[in-house]
Amino acid sequence: MTEILKGIAASSGIAIGKAFLMTEPDLTVTKSTVTNKEEEITRFHEAVNAAKLELQKIRDRAEVDLGTENAAIFDAHLLVLSDPELLGAVESKVNDEAVNAETALQETADTLIVMFEQLDNEYMRERAADIRDVTKRVIARLLEVEVPNIGLIDEEVIIISKDLAPSDTAQLNRAFAKGFTTDMGGRTSHSAIMARSLEIPAVVGTKNATSAIKQGDLIVVDGDNGEVLINPPTDVVESYVEKRNEQEAEKKQLSLLKNKKTITLDGIQVEVAANIGTPKDVESVLENGGEGVGLYRTEFLYMERDTLPTEEEQFQAYKQVLEKMGDKPVVVRTLDIGGDKQLPYLNLPEEMNPFLGFRAIRLCLEEQTIFRTQLRALLRASTFGNLKIMFPMIATLEEFREAKKLLLEEKEQLQQEGTLVSEQIEIGIMVEIPSTAILADQFAKEVDFFSIGTNDLIQYTMAADRMNESVAYLYQPYHPAILRLVKMVIDASHAQGKWTGMCGEMAGDTIAIPLLIGLGLDEFSMSAPSMLKARNQINQLTQLEMKQITEKALSMQTSEQVKQYVKETLKF
Amino acid sequence: MTEILKGIAASSGIAIGKAFLMTEPDLTVTKSTVTNKEEEITRFHEAVNAAKLELQKIRDRAEVDLGTENAAIFDAHLLVLSDPELLGAVESKVNDEAVNAETALQETADTLIVMFEQLDNEYMRERAADIRDVTKRVIARLLEVEVPNIGLIDEEVIIISKDLAPSDTAQLNRAFAKGFTTDMGGRTSHSAIMARSLEIPAVVGTKNATSAIKQGDLIVVDGDNGEVLINPPTDVVESYVEKRNEQEAEKKQLSLLKNKKTITLDGIQVEVAANIGTPKDVESVLENGGEGVGLYRTEFLYMERDTLPTEEEQFQAYKQVLEKMGDKPVVVRTLDIGGDKQLPYLNLPEEMNPFLGFRAIRLCLEEQTIFRTQLRALLRASTFGNLKIMFPMIATLEEFREAKKLLLEEKEQLQQEGTLVSEQIEIGIMVEIPSTAILADQFAKEVDFFSIGTNDLIQYTMAADRMNESVAYLYQPYHPAILRLVKMVIDASHAQGKWTGMCGEMAGDTIAIPLLIGLGLDEFSMSAPSMLKARNQINQLTQLEMKQITEKALSMQTSEQVKQYVKETLKF
Repeated sequence: MTEILKGIAASSGIAIGKAFLMTEPDLTVTKSTVTNKEEEITRFHEAVNAAKLELQKIRDRAEVDLGTENAAIFDAHLLVLSDPELLGAVESKVNDEAVNAETALQETADTLIVMFEQLDNEYMRERAADIRDVTKRVIARLLEVEVPNIGLIDEEVIIISKDLAPSDTAQLNRAFAKGFTTDMGGRTSHSAIMARSLEIPAVVGTKNATSAIKQGDLIVVDGDNGEVLINPPTDVVESYVEKRNEQEAEKKQLSLLKNKKTITLDGIQVEVAANIGTPKDVESVLENGGEGVGLYRTEFLYMERDTLPTEEEQFQAYKQVLEKMGDKPVVVRTLDIGGDKQLPYLNLPEEMNPFLGFRAIRLCLEEQTIFRTQLRALLRASTFGNLKIMFPMIATLEEFREAKKLLLEEKEQLQQEGTLVSEQIEIGIMVEIPSTAILADQFAKEVDFFSIGTNDLIQYTMAADRMNESVAYLYQPYHPAILRLVKMVIDASHAQGKWTGMCGEMAGDTIAIPLLIGLGLDEFSMSAPSMLKARNQINQLTQLEMKQITEKALSMQTSEQVKQYVKETLKF
Repeated sequence: MTEILKGIAASSGIAIGKAFLMTEPDLTVTKSTVTNKEEEITRFHEAVNAAKLELQKIRDRAEVDLGTENAAIFDAHLLVLSDPELLGAVESKVNDEAVNAETALQETADTLIVMFEQLDNEYMRERAADIRDVTKRVIARLLEVEVPNIGLIDEEVIIISKDLAPSDTAQLNRAFAKGFTTDMGGRTSHSAIMARSLEIPAVVGTKNATSAIKQGDLIVVDGDNGEVLINPPTDVVESYVEKRNEQEAEKKQLSLLKNKKTITLDGIQVEVAANIGTPKDVESVLENGGEGVGLYRTEFLYMERDTLPTEEEQFQAYKQVLEKMGDKPVVVRTLDIGGDKQLPYLNLPEEMNPFLGFRAIRLCLEEQTIFRTQLRALLRASTFGNLKIMFPMIATLEEFREAKKLLLEEKEQLQQEGTLVSEQIEIGIMVEIPSTAILADQFAKEVDFFSIGTNDLIQYTMAADRMNESVAYLYQPYHPAILRLVKMVIDASHAQGKWTGMCGEMAGDTIAIPLLIGLGLDEFSMSAPSMLKARNQINQLTQLEMKQITEKALSMQTSEQVKQYVKETLKF
């Protein structure tokens, strides 16, 4: 029987090929006493410098192949290797305990790694991974051991590895690495993010791929269902080949819609837009026929660095996005930090429930210098395109009024300084907190638009952490209560002649789309690769019919009931 | 000028008296080398045993003065002193490092304390406080130093202390300790809980009371406003004396309402009930004229112990409450553990956002043995009074159906075994998750009653952790979105001939009560001491008028607006 490993679907698509096992070299460190401590410290510094040079090379190559922001993780690695505290601790250990450099480094790193991993914070756990990666690299130098080079692969393979370090994925050659699977990792681990960026099908977190799979096994990686098949029979392989071909054909077919409108059979036109994180992402938005950017997550500008971005840095990024998008609308969300996204350099206190904590607009209204800098950068960029600004995590009208006041103050200030600012900037809010959805009729009098952030809205409405597996069953986008909240928001905006978008995962969901058309949603913002599929679906729907379906769904009792009903009625 | 310290209002009321500073003895440990390790270890064990005996005495006295559950914290202390890991670690340290016992204990304890304090978990931080308290006691024995005994105070004083350890509060004599204030602590710290239990006015977390106040200063502790006045002038003291007298007179006046109905001027009768945690609390419910128990928090049965309570233990507790309450309704909430309430012995994984995590009914539906044991105990107790059962943290109808199914299964099982079970048990749910309030019309078809848990409902609706000071401004009971949710729930229940209660803090709030009468709430459940005041207020309201006020409040924009409007309209 074919063995099937279950893992986390990290990057979609199907890959078929021979297994290439990335076996790790033996990096076991033997403790020994050194007599010439000075010499040992010099040997350590030489290894560090060699590792730095190597990393610098990998970094540069990654920048060319994967773009600046993906290369930035190697800057983090280089930072680790320049950290005087780490280097100093190793030196002290050699000096105080007269141990060899390998041991001193390993022990120092282990302490740090354990410390970081115990912290209840995804970001710090990623730092532990960085230290582990860098330590391995230096220890290999000290032991004079060759680390297998993923860049040397010269045939089509599926890479099987315990975990792929960022420095590994940076060397992946798309021509040969058709897919990969790892024992460790989650959907937001470095390797998963890289896989999606490279559009390489990947399944991570299989727990035992490296022990279950042997060199040369025939492997199918199903990145849509999170499955890895080991030596499946020919007919199964063929069915996967067929599926892959279908996916490719579908992709080709969809590409014909690239320059088409998104419009229902009864003539209701909506907008299909994309969620982006960096200026580089705009390319993919335009390639996939995006009619706008529905959500520009500006926090990436603030992450993976040691200080706040300057007004000028931000201005350049915003300008670039606006210029590239031309007339098309770009909805920029102001800084949404906190929750699962931390900025270590802000030194915010640890919170017991960060998702219910001091984040996003709450933080920005308190740390006004940070907020005003961003607003100035946005205002200055506003003349280069079609800018709309929205504030995240708005729970009360007071918060919106205060944020808008600061924006207008900075606008006036800039104008007094003689800087040109667009007079057409729409100012809206994310609707992701239940109170705001429930009071949408009052908000609609003051905002220019709403954008429903379903990821958080569902999380709060169901009181279930969307990152917590134990309560994952409560993440229910089709729950009638969620649909009712979405309806309240859309109805409220229309009553005031305003528009409503959606920038959560739900906006690109096949079952949700008919319901959202029925509810009258105006803008659907999703990951760029999903846009054409959504346009294709919408183009085949009739709004009038969807309204009837939606009305029935609103009076149903459970998410499952709604899901079954939509599936049966629309026959998919 | 009078210096006024601001702190956290931990226990209400006003206390006036001379300051008694609890100065700590010098427990500084000097590291020294011991030659006879065995003798040193014996000395350590003798100190531990002496401390144990002392603790046992304090425990017994606390049990008499404060009741079993307050005394239970000393069981936790005794447990620390019997912990073979701690004792073993100290012994090893003496043996391995040839240090004196004081040093060995201090260093071992410090490591543990730092570890516990770093954890993002209120419960574990309390454990750190336990270890600190116990360590002090043993070190004092080792150093042969006298620790000041709070029990020796023989005049009326206000106690000023850095923090009051549980062993201190246990020795407080209400006749002499008129109030207290501490530098440290929060509303849920041991000392605060004890103060409320003893009805001693207290302000905690002042940060600098011990340095700002000198022995013998005249102190006013305002436990309602969280203020501590140092040497105020005579006229200020007099105004506080007057205020205290007024409070006492009001209390006396209110006691006349003890056996009266709660009924509006236009004849709408509602029920004023109490929230309780233990069978002992029933006394205070009856003393304060409670018409029922609106919320019996059963988790106290599971806390401060090492194993789950048995079915028999639970049965005895439930039976006791039901019998004491006679015909009056008792709404028992099934186990609501998780969030800020942890049971160490269940070994649940740490969560990033425990308030959005695997708690209450989510846990009970998974850990069915625990849940079924509780349900059996409740069913067996049902014939001893007027029992109603409600499930906490219900987010979907499926969860309610599943919980009810398990209840009915256990009922059938018991009946087959020949056990008598009441046929009149109403089965309801807590409405504390937004999805359930929004879908209340569907729930109302299947449940017998709702009880709105506003503490959590507000927290989730506003997406703001109610324990997190940084977002405390978002805890807004009068926010129109909250009022709208409450309205949805009450209307839905009435449409199906069912009733709705409220068991969050809002039910006893002076500004909220008129709105809740306007919305048609049927049952108001609050802390026992608040009941008579609430009855007094309701008895002076006209529902028809409150309906008009409420209608206006529902269409307002902010919490502040509602608050001002109610205050102005009702002239208070």
